Formats: sequence, structure tokens, C-alpha cells
Amino acid sequence: MIKKGNLWSGRFSASPSDLMEKFSQSVSFDKRLYKHDIAGSIAHVEMLAAKGIISNAESEKIRDALKEILDEIESGRFLWSVEQEDVHMNIESALIEKIGEAGKKLHTGRSRNDQVSTDMRLYLMEEINSICGLLNAVQLELTHRAGQESGTIMPGWTHMQPAQPVTFGHHLLAWNEMLDRDYRRLRDCYERTNESPLGSAALAGTGYPIDREMTASRLGFGRVMVNSLDAVSDRDFAIEFASCSAILMIHLSRIAEELVLWSMPSLEYIDLGENFCTGSSIMPQKKNPDVAELIRGKSGRATGNLVTLLMIMKAQPLAYNRDNQEDKEPLFDQVDTVKTCLEVFLSMLPGIEVFPDNMAKAALIGHQTATDLADYLVDKQIPFRDAYKIVGRIVAYTIWNNTHLHEIPLKKLREFSEKIDSDVFETITLDGSLSRRNHVGGTAPIQVRKAAQKAAKKIKSRSA
Amino acid sequence: MIKKGNLWSGRFSASPSDLMEKFSQSVSFDKRLYKHDIAGSIAHVEMLAAKGIISNAESEKIRDALKEILDEIESGRFLWSVEQEDVHMNIESALIEKIGEAGKKLHTGRSRNDQVSTDMRLYLMEEINSICGLLNAVQLELTHRAGQESGTIMPGWTHMQPAQPVTFGHHLLAWNEMLDRDYRRLRDCYERTNESPLGSAALAGTGYPIDREMTASRLGFGRVMVNSLDAVSDRDFAIEFASCSAILMIHLSRIAEELVLWSMPSLEYIDLGENFCTGSSIMPQKKNPDVAELIRGKSGRATGNLVTLLMIMKAQPLAYNRDNQEDKEPLFDQVDTVKTCLEVFLSMLPGIEVFPDNMAKAALIGHQTATDLADYLVDKQIPFRDAYKIVGRIVAYTIWNNTHLHEIPLKKLREFSEKIDSDVFETITLDGSLSRRNHVGGTAPIQVRKAAQKAAKKIKSRSA
Amino acid sequence: MIKKGNLWSGRFSASPSDLMEKFSQSVSFDKRLYKHDIAGSIAHVEMLAAKGIISNAESEKIRDALKEILDEIESGRFLWSVEQEDVHMNIESALIEKIGEAGKKLHTGRSRNDQVSTDMRLYLMEEINSICGLLNAVQLELTHRAGQESGTIMPGWTHMQPAQPVTFGHHLLAWNEMLDRDYRRLRDCYERTNESPLGSAALAGTGYPIDREMTASRLGFGRVMVNSLDAVSDRDFAIEFASCSAILMIHLSRIAEELVLWSMPSLEYIDLGENFCTGSSIMPQKKNPDVAELIRGKSGRATGNLVTLLMIMKAQPLAYNRDNQEDKEPLFDQVDTVKTCLEVFLSMLPGIEVFPDNMAKAALIGHQTATDLADYLVDKQIPFRDAYKIVGRIVAYTIWNNTHLHEIPLKKLREFSEKIDSDVFETITLDGSLSRRNHVGGTAPIQVRKAAQKAAKKIKSRSA
Amino acid sequence: MIKKGNLWSGRFSASPSDLMEKFSQSVSFDKRLYKHDIAGSIAHVEMLAAKGIISNAESEKIRDALKEILDEIESGRFLWSVEQEDVHMNIESALIEKIGEAGKKLHTGRSRNDQVSTDMRLYLMEEINSICGLLNAVQLELTHRAGQESGTIMPGWTHMQPAQPVTFGHHLLAWNEMLDRDYRRLRDCYERTNESPLGSAALAGTGYPIDREMTASRLGFGRVMVNSLDAVSDRDFAIEFASCSAILMIHLSRIAEELVLWSMPSLEYIDLGENFCTGSSIMPQKKNPDVAELIRGKSGRATGNLVTLLMIMKAQPLAYNRDNQEDKEPLFDQVDTVKTCLEVFLSMLPGIEVFPDNMAKAALIGHQTATDLADYLVDKQIPFRDAYKIVGRIVAYTIWNNTHLHEIPLKKLREFSEKIDSDVFETITLDGSLSRRNHVGGTAPIQVRKAAQKAAKKIKSRSA
Repeated sequence: MIKKGNLWSGRFSASPSDLMEKFSQSVSFDKRLYKHDIAGSIAHVEMLAAKGIISNAESEKIRDALKEILDEIESGRFLWSVEQEDVHMNIESALIEKIGEAGKKLHTGRSRNDQVSTDMRLYLMEEINSICGLLNAVQLELTHRAGQESGTIMPGWTHMQPAQPVTFGHHLLAWNEMLDRDYRRLRDCYERTNESPLGSAALAGTGYPIDREMTASRLGFGRVMVNSLDAVSDRDFAIEFASCSAILMIHLSRIAEELVLWSMPSLEYIDLGENFCTGSSIMPQKKNPDVAELIRGKSGRATGNLVTLLMIMKAQPLAYNRDNQEDKEPLFDQVDTVKTCLEVFLSMLPGIEVFPDNMAKAALIGHQTATDLADYLVDKQIPFRDAYKIVGRIVAYTIWNNTHLHEIPLKKLREFSEKIDSDVFETITLDGSLSRRNHVGGTAPIQVRKAAQKAAKKIKSRSA
Repeated sequence: MIKKGNLWSGRFSASPSDLMEKFSQSVSFDKRLYKHDIAGSIAHVEMLAAKGIISNAESEKIRDALKEILDEIESGRFLWSVEQEDVHMNIESALIEKIGEAGKKLHTGRSRNDQVSTDMRLYLMEEINSICGLLNAVQLELTHRAGQESGTIMPGWTHMQPAQPVTFGHHLLAWNEMLDRDYRRLRDCYERTNESPLGSAALAGTGYPIDREMTASRLGFGRVMVNSLDAVSDRDFAIEFASCSAILMIHLSRIAEELVLWSMPSLEYIDLGENFCTGSSIMPQKKNPDVAELIRGKSGRATGNLVTLLMIMKAQPLAYNRDNQEDKEPLFDQVDTVKTCLEVFLSMLPGIEVFPDNMAKAALIGHQTATDLADYLVDKQIPFRDAYKIVGRIVAYTIWNNTHLHEIPLKKLREFSEKIDSDVFETITLDGSLSRRNHVGGTAPIQVRKAAQKAAKKIKSRSA
Repeated sequence: MIKKGNLWSGRFSASPSDLMEKFSQSVSFDKRLYKHDIAGSIAHVEMLAAKGIISNAESEKIRDALKEILDEIESGRFLWSVEQEDVHMNIESALIEKIGEAGKKLHTGRSRNDQVSTDMRLYLMEEINSICGLLNAVQLELTHRAGQESGTIMPGWTHMQPAQPVTFGHHLLAWNEMLDRDYRRLRDCYERTNESPLGSAALAGTGYPIDREMTASRLGFGRVMVNSLDAVSDRDFAIEFASCSAILMIHLSRIAEELVLWSMPSLEYIDLGENFCTGSSIMPQKKNPDVAELIRGKSGRATGNLVTLLMIMKAQPLAYNRDNQEDKEPLFDQVDTVKTCLEVFLSMLPGIEVFPDNMAKAALIGHQTATDLADYLVDKQIPFRDAYKIVGRIVAYTIWNNTHLHEIPLKKLREFSEKIDSDVFETITLDGSLSRRNHVGGTAPIQVRKAAQKAAKKIKSRSA
Repeated sequence: MIKKGNLWSGRFSASPSDLMEKFSQSVSFDKRLYKHDIAGSIAHVEMLAAKGIISNAESEKIRDALKEILDEIESGRFLWSVEQEDVHMNIESALIEKIGEAGKKLHTGRSRNDQVSTDMRLYLMEEINSICGLLNAVQLELTHRAGQESGTIMPGWTHMQPAQPVTFGHHLLAWNEMLDRDYRRLRDCYERTNESPLGSAALAGTGYPIDREMTASRLGFGRVMVNSLDAVSDRDFAIEFASCSAILMIHLSRIAEELVLWSMPSLEYIDLGENFCTGSSIMPQKKNPDVAELIRGKSGRATGNLVTLLMIMKAQPLAYNRDNQEDKEPLFDQVDTVKTCLEVFLSMLPGIEVFPDNMAKAALIGHQTATDLADYLVDKQIPFRDAYKIVGRIVAYTIWNNTHLHEIPLKKLREFSEKIDSDVFETITLDGSLSRRNHVGGTAPIQVRKAAQKAAKKIKSRSA
């Protein structure tokens, strides 16, 4: 087979072996960047023309041909060639085939090193925006639901043991806060991605009188990267994004774990909806929370991708090294993982059915108002640590007698402390416990409603 | 040995075994938080008094005793007890021993869950500021040095092969940019750490009429966390800090690698200074760049700590679980690692001696102005891709004849392209190559000087 | 302060700064290797004497003094000095101080590079044996308990949903199998650690006529490493151990998760024992499974340490680089983590109380014998996939009518399939389901008893 | 679009949404297991027939149809359907379509849970063998080359600084030792993978009178897994393989780093061959060691995949959870990465050209025989530590006077120690230094030749 030859083959006498070609190619995965590659090339040639480095006619010819190529790619007519290594060389080579001489001028004053970094940044900025859009949608749904469930009592756990009653709305707002930090982290990451490396060329800048502000602004970048060596070597944006998404996926894994737990028949706080469960190949009765499990499991690959990227960059001397080609697959996989999980979670959320009776019944298990009883004693002038000990003894009594705090007769209670009076029974009910936690961040239904409204308003304002 | 008993031992009939006590204690490492724990407690009791939950007299008594304890700790007179589990219980227990009844009121309306999160956030905020101070100092030194070395020619590498000449000042500014992103990331992390969990109590808030804004503001927090369940469950701040520092350490590993490479006798671009090298136990001639190597190696633990934290949090249901006790050692180690590495790097930098002659000589190796020759041909109206191929052939000729680009006679050069004229020799010198890269981010000495000044000004303004 | 000077300071004119000394020292953690360092030194000098490189008198003098030093260290009288960098230099320097000239001969024909690798391998071999001893003890307890619980019915889960009834003994044997693979992996790791690097000196071997087999055999190594460059560069043994322990800790995290789940009051299959739970600082009723949670959380650091070690070694050129000093802390932490977790687990196991009634009741939830019903239909000549569908419809009926499979009247059952007869009720009981799974690896009580005996025999035979 | 319906859809009233289907499908990647899935199914039905659970005619019908399906898959005619979720359901569903009733009996007495584990183990065993074959080939080439280069002098480095002269053959054998440990680790991993889970069914075994030994032996497994719960939950084999390959990739990253370093024009110890280098898109003179760089970079993903797998398994309660579907992509990627890197390395090795003159010249840099000079003094009865100090001073003199050890006049040398005589000049030459290191593992050419032969013999014997 005769090969057309690589664009960089000038100084070489032999062509790379097939094995090597297959090993070093990246077009099978970096073709995903085609749109941004073409946008970058168009901005570049228009700048070259504006600065008189190529003619306007050449610039237009290149631009039109690139748009044709874009169209060919999007309609599936473009022939990607492994021989041309990567998305950049595939497109440049097609351009030259299409328009000849003018096409050979496209790469004037730039290098694949600044080109690929430009492409990846543009790609990532678009994807971050898309992820933020999904976060907004999920968060809106959560806050909406939280408002509805502001009075739904459920057991609050610590150490996976009943601790104190909370409301389901309160719990949903905790999820919202987790995702809200993810949103903010991603916006910060966006800002650091939003810088143009274009014009850094191979590593040192170029001898042509280029205008980097012009290309940056045409491509929608917020600013120009101010050091060419750094611009082509830097992959912080990929690592930072991988880190933001790993944390996001940890959050989803926590939420997924709760969904799985709450779906256990022994708890049955919720039903996830048949559409988001699957069956067994052998056990006819099974309805498994597969979607939640898969989301939980995918947190593993999100952390794995982050480690991959950190390790690739470790101890690399400046400037560009080919190791960096390995940054794309983990980055793309990270984007896909986060987007798909958010999409699925978003579509699963509205169908989650809540069983308030089961939740309320569970809130009665495990003496969850014991803290309220201690607080009651504090109100009666017993120091907290002493009150804590008295209630400890009352709980021990409750366990031995297999009863509930609110079922112990007053007379018996007074054996533990004479400060206890009949008003104690208002304090140690679930409703009493909840409604007393009436401060910013507390679980009192009135606070939850306020918090849900405030959160929803914030989300709407930023996504407007 | 008779044990005093844990503060939480009310409902238990047997005391924990010694093995278990040793296993579950955290005081051996979390005592590092004593200062912030006491600050948090003082803010808490002053708020309790302001809201009438305890008396002013009690509040003052507690505050004074806590200050005594602080003093005892700082002067090394405090007896830490493993039996009291953690820093919180050690201090509360000492308080009660000191002042009796009043001391038992300290823990009114809070829990260790919000307490430890408050402590860790205060601790981390202080350390982030301290790390940012070190970054400022390192960056100032880098920009200062970059100004001095703006004209020092050195070979620029890609793929660890000579690529194009750059200046040493330009290279130092690339380092500055890397660290500058670290600075910005850490400030963003600071902002998300700067939120008060205090008042969230165990998980649901508390029934006392507390004022969370008051404690937050006394402790210097920027805002109150708005969901109690989230506030006690969240460790994002630790993970985000670990991620920022892992990236920072990756940067230092890249710089360290370059220092090690440049110190190789075959290159000898620099000398690291005897103070920052060590010898061999067996080879009398050795002078090893140990400090740079250790910094490079420590990037491993920075990524390891990040993985530890991510994995701890994976799939944890809300709210607090004891797994989270494991967050402290990696966080502390991360802080120590980053601080020490920056301190050592800062103290090593000024003593690094540069050998400009060796650098310049190395810039002549490997035909580093070949791109300039191609660009020269482009100026003569040869499309870049054709120019590239012509120069490829000239380079091949140079290699076969063991000569340099600028040493080929004009006549010979014209055999490759008739467009080449005697003015080519201005283009393909090192100085010609450098000075032509005269745009923002380029390596031209004049640009490097400007960039160094601008960077220094920015650093000074933020650290003022 | 005047410094004594490092043993390697010959070619240096200035002494290292204090900061640098603190940064590069390792004695604060590598002193843990003292015993193996001294053993290695004694074997080395005895070999030197045997080969006539030093005199017998010198060898004995050194040996005696080293034993004195060992004694001083173990009795706490030895003064470790940060100035002497590491455990090796501390001991060698003390030796010279003690016996003068002869002491200066200890380091003849070796280097810290082969010395530290020897020390670490000896240390690790001892610790692997100790961990294997703990595994044996845990496994014996598990198999013993499994025999006792071979008939205790509990729900078997897949997807954290009831799947099919199993016995508690069967479940304990699953844990045993997990740990058994850990045991075997550690033995394999031991074999690869069991090789002597001593005599490789700095990197190239030594010019003295040494006898590497002799030192290897004195130290109990299985064989000599056959390449000196590799011997001083290799840290595979540390990584492999870290990997074996990370997997082991993953196993413990799975077991711990189950203990936590089974301790939830809504399930209450078991009680972990008060000694292995702790209380809350605020909630008087709490009894939290802290030990299990801590073990679960510690799986994070085990994976983190593994990542640290892999990353340290990435892309290091041969032979020794100082980065490798960073291998010790993660290795030591890994050893400590695994040992402590196994010790605690071992001491917790016997106190775990099982509630067979709760387990049995839970086995009735979720139609866990549905597969048995399908199998019943297969016996009646219905192809499995059709049987599966029929039972699927029966289960749906059961759910809508809020009943149990075995409570549906035969007449109703026959509406789904006429093949169903009264003998069906023997099949779809818990006991029927269990006893039918009577093949190697199945959950039938008779199989579990056999498996427990076989496993116990195997463990006993290897630990004899 | 009307869907055919999942095989497990019996109890469900609604069909999964498309999003969900896309999210939870695995056929796009697990179809890679088709060969092993079919092999497993054939073994299973033959056993069912042998035990009288299905008829021989049915078994044969199923087997023939499965072979047809195999053929369809391998010839690209099989239509994979995302709707059928995974490789197992695709094949079973095609089988039923092909032969009707009999096909519905295939899944009698097994579950996807034991099926997928069987498939993965068979797949991995095949791939481990294939990797071991590649290792054998690489190791044979290394030992062959080492024999040829047993006398080629090169500088030995520690801390990336010249340390002592070694031979290139010695260095190649160090690589061989690293890969040899990988080989042995993979064999151990193979042994633990070589166990049959088949017959464990969903989690508890099956009620049919199956013969697990029979299926195990037909499939070539070494033994039967003895606990059904463990058999379907265990993914140790995947993690252990990921760990073995991560270490292997770390080794390749170290080798790759050395190849890159040695290819630097300032060193030029070797030439990698044009076929394994690529050019630049902008710099016409570039010849970059891309293959070595890519191998180095791919060590990142190998560690990332390992982390992914560990994290997936963390804290999973038994038995199977859907998270485990996430094990396949990292495992497959790990296999592909290791195989491709070894293939490329194997094909690159023979073309690596060595420049012995450059190596030898570099061995003269940095006083690499200083240790020999110290050893010389030890022979003259100066204790090593004193000899070390004397040589330290001689080296300092050499540096200040910009000369070499062997160029200092005897008279001058004697100013440092009167023990030095004219015979010193035999000791401190490169050849003298090398030939003195004549013990097992030492770098003396005679030892290297012996070691190369011994290593080659060992490799040949095991691959015979």
C-alpha cells in the first residue's frame, strides 16, 4: 500500500510502520474536536489576512473550504484517515486536497501544540456550560420537590443509625447544596479554561506579526494566555475539570446510595419507578435499582480519570510532550460520564414516589427525640452534660423495657429527674422536635420552605 | 486502671476496650486543631449568652477557662488523653474539671459534628492563606529573576528535543503562570471553605434559639451554611484543597524535573548550590540534586492523599459517618507537604546559578531555527506546507554533512530554493529567531521584560 | 550550633542549611528499620571478615558494638539525630563514635542504596508474616462461626434487594474466601520480596571479592537479586504489598458495610457489642458502629498509599533516585493500617450477636423463593424462559394483593399455570429453597458445614 | 418503535425508557466477551444434558445454534441490539429466535451473575497468556542484546548524575529483571483467575443437580470456586490484573524515560529509528521520540484504571451489585494498553542503534571512578570512611582544576594520601572499574555475559 505521506514527513526517509501508525494515531478519538478545530482555523486565517500575512482572497477560500469540510463531517461524508494521525492533520490535509496552494498557508504561524490546546479549551467550555445547564435543571427539580416535601417527616441518620427526625424536604435541600458547590466549582474552572493559547505556536510564539487578541476575541475567549511555553504545556484545565467532576460524581454516588438504601423493602421509604429499575435474568421477582447502582459505580471511573490525568503530567519538563495526547480519552470520558449521569438522574427524579407513612414510622425507631429530652432538661436548668447522662439512663430503660420515650409514664420519668413535668410530652414528639429546629439551616418545616424558595430563586436568576 | 469514662458513656454499661480506644482515638493527630476548637467554643458560648441560653457569668467563666487551656496547650503543659478520644472531648473534659457546672453547658446546642467541621474550616482557611503567602513570595522571586534573565538564550524543548530558542526569563515566567493558576485555584477554594457549619448541631439544627450569623461573624466566616444535614456531611473543602495542592505539586514536580535535567553534567545549564544537594554514602564525587528529587517524589503523596479523600466519601449516605475521621491525616499531610516544598523551593531559588554559555551553546544544537527558515520562505511567498518540506530537506542535508543551518553556503541553500537570499542569515541566528517572536506571550526579550514587570505588579498588588 | 558534619560531606564546602536538613531527613520515620539495618550490617561485616576484606577482630568489634546500639535503641537510650539524616547514618555514626577506626570499615563494599532496600525487604517480610498470622486467626474464627451458623437462614441480597435465602454460615464463608485470596496474594508477594539486594552497592556492584550468597543466606533471604542496577532501583515489592493490602482493605470495607447495614434498627440482624460502638456527643440514645465505619473509611488510605507509590516510581530512570525516600511513609502506614484493622476485626468478631429471628423474618420479604417456583415449573417441562415469565406474573399478583408466594391458594396458582400442583408448597419454603442448593459452593446447610470444615482444615494446616 | 421486550420483563408493566436503556446497556463493550460467553453456554448445556436436566437432543440443538451464532458474530453478520442490554441477553435472545423452545432452556440453573464472571475469567486468562507471550519475546530480545552489549561501557546514573561506569548490557538486563517480575506476577494472577464460578447461579447456587466440576473442567478451569456468594461478588481477579499491569506500565514508563533521555542530542547514546519517531507540524527539523513518550504517558491510564476498579468495589455489600458492570471498560482498556505497548516496544527494540563512543565519552564525565579510588585506599589499609573523605578532597581538587581523576599526576595525588602509588592508574580507568565488579549481579562484562545466558535459558525453558 502506498501512503500519501504525513504532512511532517519532510526530513524522514522511511514512513512509519503500520503498527506505529496505529499506536500513535489519535484521530479515532480526537475527531470529536472537529467543530472547534475548524472554528479555531477560521479565526486564525481571518487574523492572518487582517494582519496582511495572507491575502483576503486566500483567507476566504480557506474559510469556505473549511465550512465545506465541517458540513461533510457533520453529514458523515468525511473520510477520516488514521494515516493522517489526528483531527488537525486530517482537516488540513483535506483542505489542501480541496483548494491546493492556499490550503498550504493555513498552518502559517501556528503549531499543533497551540492548536490542540485551543480546541480542547473551546470544547471543554461548551461542555461545562452544558453540564451547568443540567445542574440547574436538577437543582430546580430538587428545590421544587423540597418545597412540596417540607413537612414530610423522615428519620435523620448519622452513622447509618437513627439520630433525629428531619424532613424529606430538608434532605433534598442538602443534595441541592452539594450540587450547588459543584456548579460554582465548574464556573471557576470555566474561567480558568477561558484563556486563549492560540498564537503560542510550537512553544515560543511565532515570528509573524500576529494579533492574539483578535483570534481570542473571535473565538469567545476571555483573555490571552501570557506565556507561550506555559500555553502549550498546560493541562491544568483538564485536571481541574476532572477534579470538579470527580467531586460531583462522589455527590451523585452518595445520593445514589441513599436511593438504593431507601428502596430496600425493609425500609421502603421510596419507589424509584419501574422505568429506572431492571430485572434479573434468573429471579422473576427482582426489581433492582440499577440506575442508582450504575451512577454509584461510575464515581469510580471519575476518580480514575482524574488520577490518569495527574499522573500523565507528573514530572514532565516543558514544553509539549507526546504523553499529553493521553489527556483526551479521560477528559472525554469524564464529560460523557457526568452528562449522562446527570441526564439520567434528572429524568429519574420526578418519578420517585415517596411513602410518607413508612418514613414517619421509621422516625419513631431509635429514640430520635432523646436529644430533645436532654434539651428540655437544660431548659430546666440542668447543665447539658448532666442532662445528657440522665437521658442516657432513660434510653437504657426504654431499651430494656422495649418501649418508646414518649410512652414512659411521667411518674417513671420523674424517677430519673424530678425536673421532668407533663409538658415534656410536647417536646419529645416528632413534630415538636422538628418545629423547634427553627433557625437558618434547621429542619423545621417553615425553614425548609423558606430555604427551598431562596434556593430556587438563586438557581433561576443564574440560569436566566 | 480505672477510667474516667467518656463524656458520651451514659447509655453504655461496659467501657470500650483498650484496643478499640486506641483504634478509634483521633487526638494524636486532631489536637492540631486546638486553637480553632477553642476559638469556636468561645464564639459559641458568647452567642449562647447573648441569646439568653446561658448566663453572661457562665459564658465568661467558660471563656476564661478556655483561654487558660489554650495557654496550657501552647506552653506544653496540657495533658492530652487518648481516653478522651479527640481534641474536642479533651478540651471539654478539661474545662469541666476546671470550672465544674458551667463547663457542662459548653456543649449546649451543638454537636461534635458541626464542631469538627468548623474547626477544620478555620484551620484550612489559615493554612490556605499561609500557602498563598508562600506562592506570592516564590512568584515574586521568579518574576524578578525573569526580568534579569530576559535576554539569556536557552534551547526550548518539545518532546525533550531541541525545538526553538527561548530565553531563560521566558521559561521562568512559564513557571510563574503555572503557580499563578494555583494561587487562583486556592483563593476559590478558600471562598468555598469560608462558610460556617456551626449551629447545625448533630445534623438537624438545634431546638435552642441560636444565632448562627453571630458565631459565623465572630469567627470571621463569610457566610452561614444553609442546610444543617449538608453542613455536617460535607468534606468538599478538604477534597478541593487536596486537588488544588495535587495540581500545585504536579507543577513543582515538573519544575523539579527540569532542575534535575539542567543539572546533569552533560547539560550543565545551572548549578543548584551545595546547600540544596547532598552526597553519596559510598561515591565521594557525588553531588545529588536531592531537594529537587524529593519535591518531585512528593507529588506522589499529594495525589495519593487526594485519592484517599475521594474514596472515603464515596457512597456515604448522609449525614455524618465515622469514616470521616479519616479525612484529617491526609488533609494535614497535604498542608505540610505543600508548605514545606514551597518553603524549600523558595529558599533554593536565589542560589541557583545559571551558566548562560552552556545554555547558548545548547541552543545551537538541533537546528532550532529551522522554523525561522521556513517562515522566511513563507515571507517569500512560498506556502507554509511547501516551505516546511523544503526546510525538511535542508535539515536532512545538514545532518548528513554534520553542519549547522547557518553554516551552509548561500549557493548550496539556493539549490533547495531559489527564493533564499543573503538576508536569510539574519533570520536563522538565535538572536534573529528570538527577537522576531515579539508579541504577547512570545519569547522576544523585550516581551519577556514587559511580561515580568506586569506579572510582578499583579503579584504585589494582591499581596499588599 | 556547630554541626558534626555528615559522613558524606567530603567534597562539600558548606553544610546544608537547617531547612534543607529538616526537609531531606528521613530518620524520623525510617528509624523503624533499625533492627533490620543492624541485622544487615552484622551479616555484611561477617561476610567481609570471611572473605578477608576486614579482619575477624574488626568484624567482632563491629558486631558487638552494633548489638550494643540495638540494645540502646530498644531501651530508648539511643539519641537519634536529624543531622545524621537517616537510620543508616545514625547507626554508622554511633558505631564510629563507639569503636573508632574499625567502625569506619562497616560501609566497605556497600552503599545506602543496597542497604535500604535490604532493610525494607527484611522489614516487610516480617510484617507480611505477621499479617498472615492475623489472617489465619480471623479465618479460623470465621470458619468456626460458619459451622455454628450453617443453618441460620438469612436473606441473600443482590442489588441490595432480597434475592434468595441463604444461610449466615454461607455468608461468613464468603468472607473467608475473600480473605483467603488475600492470604495467597500476600504469600506470593512475600516470595518476590524474599530476594537479597545486598552487595549491589551503589548501583554497579563492588570491586571487593564479596560473597552475596553468604549475606543473603545469613539474613534468611531465599535468593540473591541478579542485577545490581535493578536491585537498587526496584520498589516493586512495596507497590505489590500496597496493592495486596488495598484489595484486603476493600474486602474489609465490604464486610464493614454489611456489619453497619445489619446493625440498622430497621434490619437488626446483628448486634456489634457495646465495646465496639461509641456514642454521640449530643444524642444520648446513640450507639454507633464506629469501628466498622473506621475500617470502611480506612480503605481510602490504603488505595491512596498505593497510588502514592505508583506515582513516585513513574518514569524514574535507573538507578536510585531520592524520590524513593518517599516510599517509606506510605509503606509503613499501609502495614499499620492493615494490621490494626485485622486486630480490631478479630477482636470484634466473637462478640457479634446474631438475631436469627430477625434474619429469618427478613428472608420472607421480597418473594425470595420465586426462582424456586420457576425451577419447579422447569421440572414440569416448562422451558426456563417461559417459567420465568409465568412466575413474573405470579409475583406481580402477589404484590398487588399484598401477600406472599406461599400464601396464594393452589387454585389461584393454577390460573397462572396448570402444571402447578400441591407439591409446590414444599419447594417454595425457605427450608426447601435452601436444602435444594446442595452442590459444591451452594448454600444448603449440609454443604455449608462441609465447606466450613474443609476451610478450617486448610487454614490449620498452613499455620501449623 | 415497538420493542421486543427484555427477557427479564415479566413482572414489569412499563418498558424502560430509551435514555435508561442507553445508560444501562453494556453490549457496546461487553460483546468482546462473545467467544467466552458461547463457550461457557455450551459447557453449561452439555452438563445439563449429562445430568438429565435437559435432553441430549436439546443440548445438541443449543450447541449447534450457538456455534452458528459464533460464526455470525465472527463474520460480522450478527446484529447486536442495545435493547437486549448485554452480550449474554443478545446471544440468548438470538438463540431463542433461532431454535425456539429448546433455546429457552439455556439459562436453566444459572444466572447472568455467574455467567459474566465465568466469561471475564476465561477472557482474562487468554489475555494474560497473550501478554506473557509478549513478555517472553521482549525479554528474549533484551537478553540477546545484553549479550551483545556486555562490554559496551556507559555511565551509570544515580540521581540522574554520573555515578559509576556500567555496561549497556548490564542495563538491559536490569530491564529484563523488571519485566521478569511482571511475568511472575501475571502467572500468579492467572492462577487466582483460573477458578470457575459457574454454577453459583444468582448468588446461592441452584436447586438443580448440577455438576460444577464438569463445566469447570470443560472450560479448562483449574478448580471450582467453593462459595457461591463469593463467586458472583468477587472482582479480585480484575483488580489484581490491573495492579500487575499498572506495575508493568510503570516499568515501561521508566524504560521509555531512559530512551527519551538517551535520545537527547546532548547525550545521543542511542537512536530510536525513524520508524518510531514522528515529526512536528511546524518545526521541519524535529524527530521526536513519540512512541517512547506515549508509552510513558500510558502508565497514567494504567494506574487510573486500577483506581477505578478499587473504588467501584469499595464498601459493596454482597452479593452482585450493578456497579460491577463498570469493571469491564477499565479491564479491557488495561489489557489493550499493556498489549499494544509491549507490541510496539518489541518492534522498536531491534532498531535501536547504540552509539558506544558517545556512551564511553559520557562515562568519563563526573569522576565516576572515585569510588574505585576510595576502594583502592581501603586496600591500602585506610578505613573506608577515611578513604571516602580523602577522595572527596581529591574530587574537589579535580573540579577546581577542571581535570580528570586519571589525569592528576601521581605526585599531586600523593599530597592527598601517601598510600597512593602508580598502580592506582589501573584502578581508576573505566575498564578497571568495570572488570573489578566481578560478582553475581555485578557489571563486569564477564558477569553480564553469564547473566544474559542464564536469563535467556530461563525464558526459553518457560516458553517452550
